[in-house]
Amino acid sequence: MKLVIAIVQKDDANKLQRAFVKNNIRATKLATTGGFLSEGNVTFLIGTEEEHVEDVLTIIKEKSQAREEYVQPNLIPTGMELNQPVQVTVGGATCFVVNVDEFRRF
Amino acid sequence: MKLVIAIVQKDDANKLQRAFVKNNIRATKLATTGGFLSEGNVTFLIGTEEEHVEDVLTIIKEKSQAREEYVQPNLIPTGMELNQPVQVTVGGATCFVVNVDEFRRF
Amino acid sequence: MKLVIAIVQKDDANKLQRAFVKNNIRATKLATTGGFLSEGNVTFLIGTEEEHVEDVLTIIKEKSQAREEYVQPNLIPTGMELNQPVQVTVGGATCFVVNVDEFRRF
Ligand code: NI
Ligand code: NI
Ligand code: NI
Repeated sequence: MKLVIAIVQKDDANKLQRAFVKNNIRATKLATTGGFLSEGNVTFLIGTEEEHVEDVLTIIKEKSQAREEYVQPNLIPTGMELNQPVQVTVGGATCFVVNVDEFRRF
Repeated sequence: MKLVIAIVQKDDANKLQRAFVKNNIRATKLATTGGFLSEGNVTFLIGTEEEHVEDVLTIIKEKSQAREEYVQPNLIPTGMELNQPVQVTVGGATCFVVNVDEFRRF
Repeated sequence: MKLVIAIVQKDDANKLQRAFVKNNIRATKLATTGGFLSEGNVTFLIGTEEEHVEDVLTIIKEKSQAREEYVQPNLIPTGMELNQPVQVTVGGATCFVVNVDEFRRF
């Protein structure tokens, strides 16, 4: 038995959680960081058999890896011309796999 | 030294915490999930000697295992007859025991 | 690879986080406990090579160990004489070092 501790961006957490459900992976979602920080992250704890660790990591990668996106800057009605979209890096996941001596559900 | 990571329902967290205190078990309570989700959970981190792991797990089981309860549905003053109590599953705990290479308190 | 799970007092979290940044230590800050509890704590997850574990622990100790401080009690305009400063214990850190089978960043 292994425990995967995965830290992902808050914006990716919901789709990752749906992917876990769809793949019958029991994941526990811990809290996001500080309420008013937009860069909040979400931690998932996933207990899984050793043989399924790679599947879990693959799903995390698919749903939350860092990637470039173009975002439209906030529009301010100043009469100025429209701002150009800006390229930003979003997402990203940090995963620790640790050995579990015992796993119990009550 | 072992680390027990226990995830329990928010409603069971306080009585579990009192049981830890009563039994001289040092437990650190982490945050609940999303503010407005009623199904929030609480994570406890408990560092304990290997010989006391079973005691810790027993306390967690006693205070937070899944069980059936009857709840009265919200009463709405519609003039309709009183709703029947509804059986729901409450509680439940997920516990991971991992080995600790080093434990330090500063 | 090791995972250091460090639980520190909320008041020490910011300076500890700055020390991690200054020392090129990647730390993930998890959420504090219950919003309105002033005694909230903060959990850091730090993935680090085995050879740097002691450095990480030293930084945590330096920035967040328990110590005595004198605090001025809240002043209440009652016309009574000024309260004496009160000695309180602040800070404190609990650290678990666990072995990491695999570490992945996506
Ligand atoms: Ni299987
Ligand atoms: Ni003992
Ligand atoms: Ni190095």
